[in-house]
Amino acid sequence: MKPHGPIPPGFSADPDGMLLIGGARADQLAERAGDTPLFVYDRAMLTARAAEWRAAMPEGVLLHYAMKANPFAPLLAHMAGIVDGFDVASGGELAAALASGMAAGHISFAGPGKRDRELEAAISAGATLNLESAGEAERALAIGARLGIAPRLAVRVNPDFDLKGSGMKMGGGAKPFGVDAEAVPGLVRRLIDAGADWQGFHIFAGSQALDADAIADTQAQTVALAARLANAVGAPPPLVNLGGGMGVPYFPGDTAVDAARVGARLAETLAARDPVLGPSRFAMELGRWLVAEAGVYLTRIIDRKTSHGETFLVTDGGLHHQLAASGNFGTVIRRNYPIAIANAFGADPVESVSVVGCLCTPLDRLGDQVALPRAEVGDLVAIFQAGAYGASASPSAFLGQGPAREMLV
Amino acid sequence: MKPHGPIPPGFSADPDGMLLIGGARADQLAERAGDTPLFVYDRAMLTARAAEWRAAMPEGVLLHYAMKANPFAPLLAHMAGIVDGFDVASGGELAAALASGMAAGHISFAGPGKRDRELEAAISAGATLNLESAGEAERALAIGARLGIAPRLAVRVNPDFDLKGSGMKMGGGAKPFGVDAEAVPGLVRRLIDAGADWQGFHIFAGSQALDADAIADTQAQTVALAARLANAVGAPPPLVNLGGGMGVPYFPGDTAVDAARVGARLAETLAARDPVLGPSRFAMELGRWLVAEAGVYLTRIIDRKTSHGETFLVTDGGLHHQLAASGNFGTVIRRNYPIAIANAFGADPVESVSVVGCLCTPLDRLGDQVALPRAEVGDLVAIFQAGAYGASASPSAFLGQGPAREMLV
Repeated sequence: MKPHGPIPPGFSADPDGMLLIGGARADQLAERAGDTPLFVYDRAMLTARAAEWRAAMPEGVLLHYAMKANPFAPLLAHMAGIVDGFDVASGGELAAALASGMAAGHISFAGPGKRDRELEAAISAGATLNLESAGEAERALAIGARLGIAPRLAVRVNPDFDLKGSGMKMGGGAKPFGVDAEAVPGLVRRLIDAGADWQGFHIFAGSQALDADAIADTQAQTVALAARLANAVGAPPPLVNLGGGMGVPYFPGDTAVDAARVGARLAETLAARDPVLGPSRFAMELGRWLVAEAGVYLTRIIDRKTSHGETFLVTDGGLHHQLAASGNFGTVIRRNYPIAIANAFGADPVESVSVVGCLCTPLDRLGDQVALPRAEVGDLVAIFQAGAYGASASPSAFLGQGPAREMLV
Repeated sequence: MKPHGPIPPGFSADPDGMLLIGGARADQLAERAGDTPLFVYDRAMLTARAAEWRAAMPEGVLLHYAMKANPFAPLLAHMAGIVDGFDVASGGELAAALASGMAAGHISFAGPGKRDRELEAAISAGATLNLESAGEAERALAIGARLGIAPRLAVRVNPDFDLKGSGMKMGGGAKPFGVDAEAVPGLVRRLIDAGADWQGFHIFAGSQALDADAIADTQAQTVALAARLANAVGAPPPLVNLGGGMGVPYFPGDTAVDAARVGARLAETLAARDPVLGPSRFAMELGRWLVAEAGVYLTRIIDRKTSHGETFLVTDGGLHHQLAASGNFGTVIRRNYPIAIANAFGADPVESVSVVGCLCTPLDRLGDQVALPRAEVGDLVAIFQAGAYGASASPSAFLGQGPAREMLV
């Protein structure tokens, strides 16, 4: 028997033991969607999460949503009303962000391989480009000149430090992202001299960390780096994007980030900042932390079978919707995501089973030898923390099963 | 500097050093496609591969294509003319197989989570279902009775052995696939008694092996298992699907499977088979081996940058099209796929570079510190062995970059 990750707080069952999501029964949501599998995102949990962040963070710090975590259009439209900006990573995401109702002036675009047509779309719309290299800067300036628009340009900085304990390190050494710190002041001066509308710095050191002090330490380093760079430039950055870093508990033993502690330490860091950053604004860019917990993936049991004494629950879902939960995306050791039988939510486990997807590959495993209540064909399995990097980050065309349904409730 | 996998034989350059695929220049193919990135599949190489297999294998053994490896419609239509059957893994694949022109009687459908509507589609069309459990068998029989059709049913057997050295083990212990061997005879008798059209056995022990003798040993075990089961049933299976297993060289040090050796040993195995299998036909089910080498992924360099002394070539492609090549799909240790600069094909390497995708994640790496000729913005990078598990097995919606183009030449 192997443990699974912690079920996120805020989920409960009705008197029948049926999981409720956004106040609705899981089985009725599946009915409403027309079929399983489906992702359900809880609007109220998204709103509460943003409010939790604002309560924890110092006044005036901006909340940006990194839409790569979940670009489902209804969710984006909801997020547009509760955050201060969107961060996008492609021309496709830029178009979706604009369609969501987010103002172009609150959209920034990072990504190491922006094409000319993507730079042009961002400049035309009035979004900010987080420049990843000197070459990209020159292309953006040339496009701005051609269009007769002073482009809104920030510089993404490759920091000399990383976020300790992060699942995804994005700083500290040779990286494809951003401009090495020592080259940044010269590049900013070039932008200003060329008449661009310089927007500041984007400094992203890592993601998916759970240790509040590690995140706070990195933020302190980030603010100090921004100050050094600003002094070298001789001008305050209008905005310092501090990156993200706040993760969610996926696995056994993981615990939630202490957001209040991150906020309290960020307040200290900002209060003590170098005077050159006096007029600067600050933003955090969060994807996973904002949306993961609000999402549940529901999949129906198609078969229950025994092989060599091991019980398998075969579902109609799988890694084509939930690649990360199958352990095949950026993880070395497979561990179990939080998982439950939706129609016996909260019931005591009585057996050890492996929950597999319908794909004809041994990679397609959603729960490995987990303890669950007895479940039969037709029952619903729920995978939690499914609001981020699920539907859009999985190979939905693989084996021709088709994409999952998605709904915001 | 880290090595990359071997460039498959059969590729050459024109006098300008431009990679040729199917006789056409890589840059002209990109032009014809309208944009990069693109997958190009070489029709003549597919045909030659099937012919190589037929020359190596004993007369009468059937060649099936496992279309999960590459379901691109024009490629499927081509494969339909050069193989003896298709193996599908979903209702979606079944529909694509039928649309390709392959006769339903030569299509078999395996997969652990078949829904009733998928069983019904297969039975109605006249395709063979490879049954994965007793429960699925009863559902298929009930649907056949309701439709008034004797369903074509084979039993997928979970073998008690696996394929040594295979990248993907699909036998030897508790598995979600197939029926444990000891339960197979009873299930076959049930099918025959119920009036089904029993088609035989499907026994798949593993895939992506390069050692001919390991594959041959597994085939010998598979034939022996089929004979034991046939004797227990008291009837010869019309067809024994021996599974696949033949892999391709992706990584440094990998060498191609000795197909002639597999064929010679299979001939011995079949000549010495138990008399109960005298009337049986045999098939191999190959996906990757048939199509991987015929495919090349072409992506254009968008930026060339240096960070802390390391050179990065940033391309317009990435893991959203080539998840396996990025090392994030079923592999524990990331190694480099075969890679080249398409417009300097065969030129001596002069520098160590990392080739990354355009996605804003450190997972998106197509070549890690590989030795390549000098390449500039606008040049084309080629990733080989891209004909299998590329476009359809990657998260094409991730970060909004969109799917790759595909073409058969």
